[in-house]
Amino acid sequence: MSASLSEPRVGVWLIGARGSVATTVIAGCAAVTAGLHPPTGIVTETAPFAGCGLPALSSLVFGGHDTVDCPLPKRAEALAAEGVLPHGLPSAVAAELAAADGEIRPGGPAPGDTRTAAQLVDDFAADLRDFVRRRGLARAIVVNVASTEPTPTGTELPPSSLYAAAAVQAGCPYVNFTPSTGLHHPALSSAAGSSGLPYAGRDGKTGQTLLRSVLGPMFAQRALAVRAWSGTNLLGGGDGASLADPGAAAAKNAGKERVLADTLGAAPEGEVHIDDVPALGDWKTAWDHIAFDGFLGTRMILQTIWQGCDSALAAPLVLDLARLVARAHEKGLSGPLSALGFYFKDPVGDGPSALGEQYAALTRFAQQLRVSPGNPR
Amino acid sequence: MSASLSEPRVGVWLIGARGSVATTVIAGCAAVTAGLHPPTGIVTETAPFAGCGLPALSSLVFGGHDTVDCPLPKRAEALAAEGVLPHGLPSAVAAELAAADGEIRPGGPAPGDTRTAAQLVDDFAADLRDFVRRRGLARAIVVNVASTEPTPTGTELPPSSLYAAAAVQAGCPYVNFTPSTGLHHPALSSAAGSSGLPYAGRDGKTGQTLLRSVLGPMFAQRALAVRAWSGTNLLGGGDGASLADPGAAAAKNAGKERVLADTLGAAPEGEVHIDDVPALGDWKTAWDHIAFDGFLGTRMILQTIWQGCDSALAAPLVLDLARLVARAHEKGLSGPLSALGFYFKDPVGDGPSALGEQYAALTRFAQQLRVSPGNPR
Amino acid sequence: MSASLSEPRVGVWLIGARGSVATTVIAGCAAVTAGLHPPTGIVTETAPFAGCGLPALSSLVFGGHDTVDCPLPKRAEALAAEGVLPHGLPSAVAAELAAADGEIRPGGPAPGDTRTAAQLVDDFAADLRDFVRRRGLARAIVVNVASTEPTPTGTELPPSSLYAAAAVQAGCPYVNFTPSTGLHHPALSSAAGSSGLPYAGRDGKTGQTLLRSVLGPMFAQRALAVRAWSGTNLLGGGDGASLADPGAAAAKNAGKERVLADTLGAAPEGEVHIDDVPALGDWKTAWDHIAFDGFLGTRMILQTIWQGCDSALAAPLVLDLARLVARAHEKGLSGPLSALGFYFKDPVGDGPSALGEQYAALTRFAQQLRVSPGNPR
Amino acid sequence: MSASLSEPRVGVWLIGARGSVATTVIAGCAAVTAGLHPPTGIVTETAPFAGCGLPALSSLVFGGHDTVDCPLPKRAEALAAEGVLPHGLPSAVAAELAAADGEIRPGGPAPGDTRTAAQLVDDFAADLRDFVRRRGLARAIVVNVASTEPTPTGTELPPSSLYAAAAVQAGCPYVNFTPSTGLHHPALSSAAGSSGLPYAGRDGKTGQTLLRSVLGPMFAQRALAVRAWSGTNLLGGGDGASLADPGAAAAKNAGKERVLADTLGAAPEGEVHIDDVPALGDWKTAWDHIAFDGFLGTRMILQTIWQGCDSALAAPLVLDLARLVARAHEKGLSGPLSALGFYFKDPVGDGPSALGEQYAALTRFAQQLRVSPGNPR
Repeated sequence: MSASLSEPRVGVWLIGARGSVATTVIAGCAAVTAGLHPPTGIVTETAPFAGCGLPALSSLVFGGHDTVDCPLPKRAEALAAEGVLPHGLPSAVAAELAAADGEIRPGGPAPGDTRTAAQLVDDFAADLRDFVRRRGLARAIVVNVASTEPTPTGTELPPSSLYAAAAVQAGCPYVNFTPSTGLHHPALSSAAGSSGLPYAGRDGKTGQTLLRSVLGPMFAQRALAVRAWSGTNLLGGGDGASLADPGAAAAKNAGKERVLADTLGAAPEGEVHIDDVPALGDWKTAWDHIAFDGFLGTRMILQTIWQGCDSALAAPLVLDLARLVARAHEKGLSGPLSALGFYFKDPVGDGPSALGEQYAALTRFAQQLRVSPGNPR
Repeated sequence: MSASLSEPRVGVWLIGARGSVATTVIAGCAAVTAGLHPPTGIVTETAPFAGCGLPALSSLVFGGHDTVDCPLPKRAEALAAEGVLPHGLPSAVAAELAAADGEIRPGGPAPGDTRTAAQLVDDFAADLRDFVRRRGLARAIVVNVASTEPTPTGTELPPSSLYAAAAVQAGCPYVNFTPSTGLHHPALSSAAGSSGLPYAGRDGKTGQTLLRSVLGPMFAQRALAVRAWSGTNLLGGGDGASLADPGAAAAKNAGKERVLADTLGAAPEGEVHIDDVPALGDWKTAWDHIAFDGFLGTRMILQTIWQGCDSALAAPLVLDLARLVARAHEKGLSGPLSALGFYFKDPVGDGPSALGEQYAALTRFAQQLRVSPGNPR
Repeated sequence: MSASLSEPRVGVWLIGARGSVATTVIAGCAAVTAGLHPPTGIVTETAPFAGCGLPALSSLVFGGHDTVDCPLPKRAEALAAEGVLPHGLPSAVAAELAAADGEIRPGGPAPGDTRTAAQLVDDFAADLRDFVRRRGLARAIVVNVASTEPTPTGTELPPSSLYAAAAVQAGCPYVNFTPSTGLHHPALSSAAGSSGLPYAGRDGKTGQTLLRSVLGPMFAQRALAVRAWSGTNLLGGGDGASLADPGAAAAKNAGKERVLADTLGAAPEGEVHIDDVPALGDWKTAWDHIAFDGFLGTRMILQTIWQGCDSALAAPLVLDLARLVARAHEKGLSGPLSALGFYFKDPVGDGPSALGEQYAALTRFAQQLRVSPGNPR
Repeated sequence: MSASLSEPRVGVWLIGARGSVATTVIAGCAAVTAGLHPPTGIVTETAPFAGCGLPALSSLVFGGHDTVDCPLPKRAEALAAEGVLPHGLPSAVAAELAAADGEIRPGGPAPGDTRTAAQLVDDFAADLRDFVRRRGLARAIVVNVASTEPTPTGTELPPSSLYAAAAVQAGCPYVNFTPSTGLHHPALSSAAGSSGLPYAGRDGKTGQTLLRSVLGPMFAQRALAVRAWSGTNLLGGGDGASLADPGAAAAKNAGKERVLADTLGAAPEGEVHIDDVPALGDWKTAWDHIAFDGFLGTRMILQTIWQGCDSALAAPLVLDLARLVARAHEKGLSGPLSALGFYFKDPVGDGPSALGEQYAALTRFAQQLRVSPGNPR
């Protein structure tokens, strides 16, 4: 798992680089590389991905944009105090956190910032090119892990799209782990298409929707008639607060409901709530109540309660995506990577919605990435 | 869906023919045939099974063995009073219930019965042959839906195996919907193998294990480390009482745990309880508590609560199995039908344990059964 | 429990007399009187209420106002088909349903109704006086069990207040089982005060809030620090639809939150959702998630799931209230009956919020109502 | 809250002094005394207990018996690593842990110990007397917080009773926080009675039974008919392992069921399981499923899920009990302290079973302990 001296290094540029997901990505990658923790939750460390030419965890170099300036080591200490990171980890990986912190550049637009959208994109792209050059990287993947932004109402590019445009301009593959707009903006579609870059997204599937993507198909396969699927999510942390905004919640819920409509054939009754509960910190609880009819119309109910730590659920998937997209770029793939639907609530491209089928598509994709005798890269 | 005049009729011979599952099978088949209810829960009525040559629901003729003598119409009324069957249904399908009731023969051995095992098998087989001849059936499928019997301790054939032996002797395909021994007895294996008959089983997957067969794969695919999987089942009805017997519960639980070991790679900590709660009648509740580790060892929990009606969950699957096995017999297939693992906790033959893969195997099997231009049967 | 010939009869006038709660009240009172069902859920049929001079169930005479015109026997059949009433009950108590149906008068204002508020009140009061006179009643109690109305925004009297004003005008005690305004309108407070009539309310406590009124005190007594109390209610039926209106939900939620603030000392974080899920019919599910701190700040969680039938929960309490308020009127009590806080989310008058203390207050009140040697009434 | 120089010091002698409950008691008392944490969970620190003459937390001196020899500071570090104690706490209270560790004496009988029961009792009593003398204590309270022992089958005194006998012999009040026998042995009843010492017990009420003691009364007060009350407890830690012993579980479950029989009037159907799930460590989860009938026999269900940390739930109650029993001893009270039923599953003496009534009894008891003008002690 250690990077050989000659192995090329790969950049992972995180939008929202000082947030709890990014901090967990950086600290966790260092911890697993150092053998302090097993690679639990990192799908690309399992058998089907061996020999696929993915960059080693030890070869990843982190940087990013953020609008806040709390240093990563301090952020990591705060996460450890909340139980999100293991105690002792921040000090054990202090060097790696400090190194990544040195590669974080100011995001934007900040209040009072008078730069135009085009200038912001230029500045962000310059940051990216500088990162790749200074650190001697084979390539850098941009991953958006910033707080969800409200659904934009006008034609102006929202911040997530400015960063996405910068990625394209700098020649970097792009992954949108949030429901924010990113590359999904009409003004960006032609640039994305002609860039020759691979991209993936949207909205990491880490809890309630993950469950829905296995339970929906179960009901369909058993010919059971789902009448109502209702859900409530409780979460604190940054995401809880940003999703308390009805616009942001609407963006998030659209993805959740799409999974049901796709796997069940039609969207059932039922609402989804996202509540900001600061007392829960980074921990989230999702309750789902599924009313279904069985044989002869007999009414039955399934309920699920998922209690997880948002950052710990997201971080290994971010590492997976960075590695898979980096390798896809190396192999010359471009456009929407629909084979990565396994990771997303609202995947780009066409692909199945059932998790089992998405997993099959993912492992087939891994085969495609495999180093072949005649193809050294 | 209606049987043409010339369509051959197929017998479904239920062991435990006066139980709540059997009563629901018979009443429900009549109700769906008559258009009183949609075929919710009957997988073989969905698109992938069209054109596969399965016998129509209207062509099924019911009979069976039982040791109790409450007439089916009366049993159906009792089930309707408990809310297991829709009110009004018993009277709407009174004729079909009475017809099936006329085809039920005494099971055994009853207390005081002095017949030997061989005599019992002969008598049961004679009942079967008589049923096929008198009703002019193309074939009859024997399906065990009797209460779970304790794991046998000696070498004697338990009742479920006597019925299974009779099926083989009478040339009838056999399906074991319970965890009882049935054909899985050392004394029967060679007869089963040389009979040229197809068979399927064991232990219908209708609730907690169904869920486990979709959730187990999810944890494995996401590389999450399940540390403990604990479960409690509450149910009344006949099955609650019989499973309060530790021997019967042990038989049932073995199947539940196999699913986890197979899908997770190793059996996690945790027990499974089955409680007899007469107040719940035919309704069962299954609570599962899954403690798992995510990235960096973060502890997380999933809980599920399944509230269903046992008979309504089982009955459509019994119809599916009777139809699929009848068609397999018609097509000349023999031996363990491992492609039917979708329906069982502890499937015969080799096959996947994840529900999604089992569903894929089932639909491939359906293709195999398809009426082909060159093969009229 | 049977009314002697000489026992005076007492009227129960239901606002929303054709709704599911009212239908269950009327059918259930008849069923219990006839000995078809035990008096489960009727608190005033338990030992502490014996000898308190409450009117017998058999002495209650039902009537009411409603704006819809589905006859009660038909409504009862529909409720039986949904499983809200036992099958067979509507026909067993058909006479009593028909009798009550004959005493239902048109409510209002209906669309296009040109009567002024004062005229409506006069007309409703006339209906009440006519009911008392024709049926030779000792008194009649008006109970509002209509669907929740939105919180009124102007100064105009909402319908619930028109009915309440009519009760006062006709000299009838008034009970508000809903969160609607009723007698709580500034324009009615002086009339209510000077009427000399007893009254009770507001908003029957039948599920989530009932639980909160026993769990809140538990946390307080154990000195545990509740950090967040979140809840979601799913319900269909008329109440689900009316509470989907944000105004009506706000009225309902205010009561729910008051219980927590009162029993915990301060309102914790957390929201309450009420979702209309038509598929659930009259069945409601309430999930509560309570995050609390124990010793040394250890974070712990309690979750509750309440699955009940709204009408079956409400109906016996309506019978209790009608009997208690009738007896209070007979005893000459007037003004807000704060001793009935046991029944309400948002009780009139001053009283405790913990259910145990409310129960103690209720049984003390029952002693006050007791027939004493020197006081024959 | 700080002890004045002249305030007498009170000993708390813990049986099982190196266990997780004892460690949490000692570390937590120091933390609260030092102002590092608020006194969450300590009922005797709330308003109704002010001015009752209870010994200050700062006046408590800890010691005890145990058969293992892991030093307390090390045990505390292990608990902090598991998240049972806050990180940083063991080092913050290292001095207090070391001091208590110096007062722990070997328990028994250890394997190979040849002392008779009488000798063991003498030795334990000598340890107690020595503790009181050396530390200049006004009194010492013995509290059993050791792992639950199996229900004894013979006439021999089990270890918990040896310690209880030693307490009596040394003139120390005794509290049994476990379901073990302790003072409840026929051979000890007369000594306990004639000792003039107060005592309390049995089996601290910290989770499922706490909930049952508030929910049982709710069903009774609302005249709802509980048909079945089923429960499963999952816990790791020492208690999980010891309760996996069927004998120990039986002892524990008896207390749980007594609460239901007392509050509901009769014991409902349903079992209670206690599973040892080592993966959960000191965390426990209790699921309860309550099937009840409402009006007209309508079937309804309440489910509760309690997720707590066993030691953090128990420790503040142990502090409460030590203080209350110490004050009772000072006031000259003797015999079973039935007013402390609030704390126990299976309280000594006669008293109510509903938590609300137990709380009222406790606060009345606190009034009894109050320092009165004419009674300086």
